[in-house]
Amino acid sequence: MAIRLLISGGTFDKEYDELTGTLFFKDTHIQEMLRLGRCRLDVVVRTVMMVDSLEMTDADREAILANCRQAPEKQIVVTHGTDTMVETARLLAAGAPDKTIVLTGAMVPYAFGSSDGLFNLGSALSFVQVLPPGVSIAMNGRCFSWDRVRKNTALGVFEEIPG
Amino acid sequence: MAIRLLISGGTFDKEYDELTGTLFFKDTHIQEMLRLGRCRLDVVVRTVMMVDSLEMTDADREAILANCRQAPEKQIVVTHGTDTMVETARLLAAGAPDKTIVLTGAMVPYAFGSSDGLFNLGSALSFVQVLPPGVSIAMNGRCFSWDRVRKNTALGVFEEIPG
Amino acid sequence: MAIRLLISGGTFDKEYDELTGTLFFKDTHIQEMLRLGRCRLDVVVRTVMMVDSLEMTDADREAILANCRQAPEKQIVVTHGTDTMVETARLLAAGAPDKTIVLTGAMVPYAFGSSDGLFNLGSALSFVQVLPPGVSIAMNGRCFSWDRVRKNTALGVFEEIPG
Amino acid sequence: MAIRLLISGGTFDKEYDELTGTLFFKDTHIQEMLRLGRCRLDVVVRTVMMVDSLEMTDADREAILANCRQAPEKQIVVTHGTDTMVETARLLAAGAPDKTIVLTGAMVPYAFGSSDGLFNLGSALSFVQVLPPGVSIAMNGRCFSWDRVRKNTALGVFEEIPG
Repeated sequence: MAIRLLISGGTFDKEYDELTGTLFFKDTHIQEMLRLGRCRLDVVVRTVMMVDSLEMTDADREAILANCRQAPEKQIVVTHGTDTMVETARLLAAGAPDKTIVLTGAMVPYAFGSSDGLFNLGSALSFVQVLPPGVSIAMNGRCFSWDRVRKNTALGVFEEIPG
Repeated sequence: MAIRLLISGGTFDKEYDELTGTLFFKDTHIQEMLRLGRCRLDVVVRTVMMVDSLEMTDADREAILANCRQAPEKQIVVTHGTDTMVETARLLAAGAPDKTIVLTGAMVPYAFGSSDGLFNLGSALSFVQVLPPGVSIAMNGRCFSWDRVRKNTALGVFEEIPG
Repeated sequence: MAIRLLISGGTFDKEYDELTGTLFFKDTHIQEMLRLGRCRLDVVVRTVMMVDSLEMTDADREAILANCRQAPEKQIVVTHGTDTMVETARLLAAGAPDKTIVLTGAMVPYAFGSSDGLFNLGSALSFVQVLPPGVSIAMNGRCFSWDRVRKNTALGVFEEIPG
Repeated sequence: MAIRLLISGGTFDKEYDELTGTLFFKDTHIQEMLRLGRCRLDVVVRTVMMVDSLEMTDADREAILANCRQAPEKQIVVTHGTDTMVETARLLAAGAPDKTIVLTGAMVPYAFGSSDGLFNLGSALSFVQVLPPGVSIAMNGRCFSWDRVRKNTALGVFEEIPG
């Protein structure tokens, strides 16, 4: 059975615009990353949007949810900006309870030298294959249930909310 | 509970010797890779050896097994050359049945630009957290049981042995 | 005789701040670049400032000029943001006519994968060794006299002003 | 006037064969390097051969010389393995005295992360534009006349022969 990989943008896919000196979105780097990882999984990639997660609207989140619900696959990885990843995870948990959904992202754009993106992609694609239905966030080598995680913006890491 | 990470060498950790133009082993790149992946798991790293897996002896494999058995951790990742990874996996399965052990490696050295190492490390560290006791190989984004996998040397990928 | 290498910031030395998702200056990457280039020249590095060249003040430019005049070396390379590189070159040409000064920079930060920085540094350090006194800009593999060059901001390249 | 860029192989262009774990030649990386360096010089690239310079025959060297002599351009850069670069330089000096020829190479393959190749290419393309006719070697940020240079194989650097 295939894994669906939904692209929503985020730091993961940002690039450097050398004419303006700013960061922007062009195309996703996912195909290149899957090739680099010599990934042999049956992965169906769909770019749902390419936005900074701080600018993601409710309608954007609904679009991600709709993609999750309509996908024939039971296992779904969503790449997402880290700043509002938890918020989207909450919506997906309420609206698509029968799928295994793993959200991941990156602290540094893949196109830059020192990105955590490839590590996180390997991690998310692995967790999604073995976890039961439910929504999780795969960051920092760990896997967090959507209702027990927050981003520590001071440290730039995800951490578990004490129960 | 911590994860033990045992280093045995393999392509993963090879470097280019600019004086001789050949590949060799110096130190493991694992710490740098964990830092790049912003890994926040409690990982205990031990370098057991640094050898090409084609040159690995029975005594070398026994040393890896001994390290797995003696480790207080229940979850163990072993980095290993791909050529004889399956052989070592078989020995570990026979000798350490109560641990979750995931072997991984790389087709291209981490020190080179186009390595699959970071992807594989993220994958192995994820599988090891959720799988029950047993020995697996994490390569190409997939996870194979030790007794159902072979390396396809013509393609440079791991594949499942039809049951 | 040594070459003086003055650092003024610019895209060359920008880094990605993973906590804020913005670009910023920390330390110069010049020493790492010289090491990567296996550079065996006698180079004296001085960080004069670390600023975006669009924010460079007249006082900043005077500080660069003062550093050029006071340096005991006759050959000087200045790393500089590309947007106002020509303006600084003009000031140096008026104030330090007896030195060979080559300004260079980068369109993409060195810390990112696809930077032209290392190429440009190799170029600038080479031109400065063989050119007579005067001020030049080394970009795009070419060397332009300060009074015959402009940055084409639409293309992101330096070009000669027709005489 | 254009610059001719002759490719002869060497460490510069070596790649890692992930099926055999050895280094080999496929295509030159020069076009990618020129693009990375945002090079705007008029450069004509010709691959003369792709060989390790330790395996270069007299006939190979004669072929490089013939290419230098027949080129309409007066400025020529030759990429070359470092081990016998000086030997080829000597032949070119004897046979093509009216051209400005700069040989360069790399200690680490460009395809690997830590290569000096881009720095050296920027350097060679710069020296060739300003030097008078004659044969030089551009390595380590320096430029050596063909008859005053040797490779220090213990240090992996080029150095001047005391006169």
